[in-house]
Amino acid sequence: MMETEVIIEREIRLDKPILIEGLPGLGLVGKIAAEHMLTELNAERFGTLYSPHFPPQVIIEDDGVVRMMRNEFYYWTAENENQHDLIFIVGDHQGQTPDSHYELVGKILDVSQMYNTKMIYTLGGYGTGRLPRHPKVFGAVNDKSLIKPLKEAGVSFEKTGGAIVGAAGLLLGQGKLRGIKGACLMGETHGQIIDARSAKAVLEILCKLLNLSIDLTKLEKKAKETEKMLEKAMKAEQQQQQIMKPLPIGEGPTYIR
Amino acid sequence: MMETEVIIEREIRLDKPILIEGLPGLGLVGKIAAEHMLTELNAERFGTLYSPHFPPQVIIEDDGVVRMMRNEFYYWTAENENQHDLIFIVGDHQGQTPDSHYELVGKILDVSQMYNTKMIYTLGGYGTGRLPRHPKVFGAVNDKSLIKPLKEAGVSFEKTGGAIVGAAGLLLGQGKLRGIKGACLMGETHGQIIDARSAKAVLEILCKLLNLSIDLTKLEKKAKETEKMLEKAMKAEQQQQQIMKPLPIGEGPTYIR
Amino acid sequence: MMETEVIIEREIRLDKPILIEGLPGLGLVGKIAAEHMLTELNAERFGTLYSPHFPPQVIIEDDGVVRMMRNEFYYWTAENENQHDLIFIVGDHQGQTPDSHYELVGKILDVSQMYNTKMIYTLGGYGTGRLPRHPKVFGAVNDKSLIKPLKEAGVSFEKTGGAIVGAAGLLLGQGKLRGIKGACLMGETHGQIIDARSAKAVLEILCKLLNLSIDLTKLEKKAKETEKMLEKAMKAEQQQQQIMKPLPIGEGPTYIR
Amino acid sequence: MMETEVIIEREIRLDKPILIEGLPGLGLVGKIAAEHMLTELNAERFGTLYSPHFPPQVIIEDDGVVRMMRNEFYYWTAENENQHDLIFIVGDHQGQTPDSHYELVGKILDVSQMYNTKMIYTLGGYGTGRLPRHPKVFGAVNDKSLIKPLKEAGVSFEKTGGAIVGAAGLLLGQGKLRGIKGACLMGETHGQIIDARSAKAVLEILCKLLNLSIDLTKLEKKAKETEKMLEKAMKAEQQQQQIMKPLPIGEGPTYIR
Repeated sequence: MMETEVIIEREIRLDKPILIEGLPGLGLVGKIAAEHMLTELNAERFGTLYSPHFPPQVIIEDDGVVRMMRNEFYYWTAENENQHDLIFIVGDHQGQTPDSHYELVGKILDVSQMYNTKMIYTLGGYGTGRLPRHPKVFGAVNDKSLIKPLKEAGVSFEKTGGAIVGAAGLLLGQGKLRGIKGACLMGETHGQIIDARSAKAVLEILCKLLNLSIDLTKLEKKAKETEKMLEKAMKAEQQQQQIMKPLPIGEGPTYIR
Repeated sequence: MMETEVIIEREIRLDKPILIEGLPGLGLVGKIAAEHMLTELNAERFGTLYSPHFPPQVIIEDDGVVRMMRNEFYYWTAENENQHDLIFIVGDHQGQTPDSHYELVGKILDVSQMYNTKMIYTLGGYGTGRLPRHPKVFGAVNDKSLIKPLKEAGVSFEKTGGAIVGAAGLLLGQGKLRGIKGACLMGETHGQIIDARSAKAVLEILCKLLNLSIDLTKLEKKAKETEKMLEKAMKAEQQQQQIMKPLPIGEGPTYIR
Repeated sequence: MMETEVIIEREIRLDKPILIEGLPGLGLVGKIAAEHMLTELNAERFGTLYSPHFPPQVIIEDDGVVRMMRNEFYYWTAENENQHDLIFIVGDHQGQTPDSHYELVGKILDVSQMYNTKMIYTLGGYGTGRLPRHPKVFGAVNDKSLIKPLKEAGVSFEKTGGAIVGAAGLLLGQGKLRGIKGACLMGETHGQIIDARSAKAVLEILCKLLNLSIDLTKLEKKAKETEKMLEKAMKAEQQQQQIMKPLPIGEGPTYIR
Repeated sequence: MMETEVIIEREIRLDKPILIEGLPGLGLVGKIAAEHMLTELNAERFGTLYSPHFPPQVIIEDDGVVRMMRNEFYYWTAENENQHDLIFIVGDHQGQTPDSHYELVGKILDVSQMYNTKMIYTLGGYGTGRLPRHPKVFGAVNDKSLIKPLKEAGVSFEKTGGAIVGAAGLLLGQGKLRGIKGACLMGETHGQIIDARSAKAVLEILCKLLNLSIDLTKLEKKAKETEKMLEKAMKAEQQQQQIMKPLPIGEGPTYIR
């Protein structure tokens, strides 16, 4: 395998589907949100993306059978005329090098355009180093016309000037060059903790925007587990005297994934 | 040389050969096992793989003649109808970067498919940080149907959830995409020691699976040497107060520029 | 996106334009100078360069709208016969790897040659670790015939033997191979401070060379702000006892950007 | 520039020339030897090699004129029938990454084969950490038939089992695949010092092999300067007490291969 490949496993017909991206990023907020959504909607897989830019390894699953590192395409068909057909892109990894991010995002857009996608929502976390009880959802768009409806759905536009790193950002940037509108929804999150609570906040707003009603019970349960884990961690931290906490390179609090 | 090249040096005919991979990896378990096997079987070389992704150097062999870094293809023809023709891939190195692993594995599969290979065994080590007297052999497969016969041959499937890095894993993953079944046999090993004992454990099971009978005397001898070396090393370690850690790779005094 | 792409957004006609490069480098001297110049001249954008070798991210601008990392081409048409048509290349980033520098510079030259460019000025800083009140402007050329007119305009040629890293250097080197003359103007600068004063020194000489008269008031204001900031910083530094001063990797004082 | 390019600047005719490689390497032994030789022979340049794998910079030469990083091809025509026509490859740099070494060596061989080269001498240093008063010259070949004449010329074949890194090694390895014989002459050297004395030892043997007589006076002068510098350095070293040695990066026991 010399470059990124997509295998379309099922012939499907979709009507201008909206692409929803939930690849791994800060706090796994986007991944948790998108995967919860597609599970609750019983979305079905129609394609798989393999890339030489993923780690060169296979995962041994619980039954002893291995599988390649991958991203997966799922789809869901609208149930009424207030809804839109959806495509999801989720998976194990993003690119490991700068140029592989661009290559992977290009391939994801190629697939989306095969089905005439005109709109993208990318989901991610916005790291603040704090753990808010009620995480805000910050927005960024690739077209001004999207700001008003997002604000009405509760999205905050107070965070500007930063950068959105990886697929969540590049899908909007490269999408615009291809005439596809897009918005990024970023749940406020600590940045170094897997954060189901932030994912829930993102999903509530996304459901509003898409006229969808999704059961969030399982996400709430996960969020409560996160909460307990955090309380423990914070107590332990208070007992420590000196905290050594060098942030990973290139991931200061202004970077969003 | 701009990409990986394979030179086929001998025209051969094989009947659905099984590919056996023994490239360098953890404890050199797979390399020792595969190289012992092909030596004992008098397998012959039919191809050589060169790659710009191997270290940019040549090795000075004992007679003062240099040779390129390489992987080598060997073949062996079944002696009775209970056996299978075999292809071996062994050599100096695996890829040095993520994407070169994918490229190299693709080339190995290309060659295997030229001879209509339908089954792969990849050999490797499974690092546990311990030195068992009787190393287990752990398995992973790319097709559920392979689990039963492997278990019957003594392979353990208790280790799941991990990752198999490099050719041993990718040959199964990419092989599956090409319709080739495959299993990885991983000998339990310490992880930081060259381990002939673990290689012997792997080979005993592989011979059972392939209806082969191979003389393991030399491997047993090596295993005993390993054992002695280890006992010495462990005693020495106990006596040391402060441990000297090895020099960075590729900077010994034996390197010439 | 698999390689660097240029989108020409406007059809323009230019008469042997001079290319002026002001991409980010040491002290941002070249960037500040070129961007001030094109603003004052009301130069207009006619093309955008995107590259998978830029950081894989988008910037959230003040209105909440994102944009890709990019370089931009501007043009300006001569107002009298003593002047030359101009093309500017400015932007967020240079390449992140050695070979991407070569690729990007090749693309910039491709665009310049579309309009029959025969001359290039690249702008940059020359780090000396000191903060001169009256920064000199050092020169380097890709053709001996350029030295005399540059000296007459006040450029110093006392700094030789060093290297010019990045686009400022490669545009001259690769340009020469394509038959394009070029000079690099390097403003003396500290090296670790954004330096508008040095940019002003460079611009004064460039205007003389191009028979242009440009309002430098805003640049002077910026320069004064720099000055104040520096005085503060220097006082603070004097109060420190021990100075931690790790140089950026690969950027000793002989490297110029 | 997207890949390595060679510009042939002069049409020449050569009769099965021998290629002599002296690119930068350990102790700059090969570079000093080859450059001294071509200067003394008044060899002339006929080609230049540029590569995006060289550092992305230009050098400012003494007259203020810049030049690209490059390798250069020189040629010399035999003066009697006991001699051979010669091609030299010398220059600023070798590749910076593993695969770029392979690409560059491939290009050098392409040029050599244009002139029907059948033999290569690569020149380098062999690091021993010691500073011998009379450096030996170690040899390695890509064809057994070369050992006898080299031994007769005074080359030692006692060092085997090591690796020859970079062009000096790959030219022999890749050359062999193209049917070109080759030998590497390695002057014994300390490894961290520019060593003209070792270069002189290499050159004496090479001249014998090529039936050439070259004035080594300037090299002897350089060698004496090296000697003085070394004596100083060794005294300084004796005064140091503790040597800091770096740890290797990134090799945990949890990876399975």
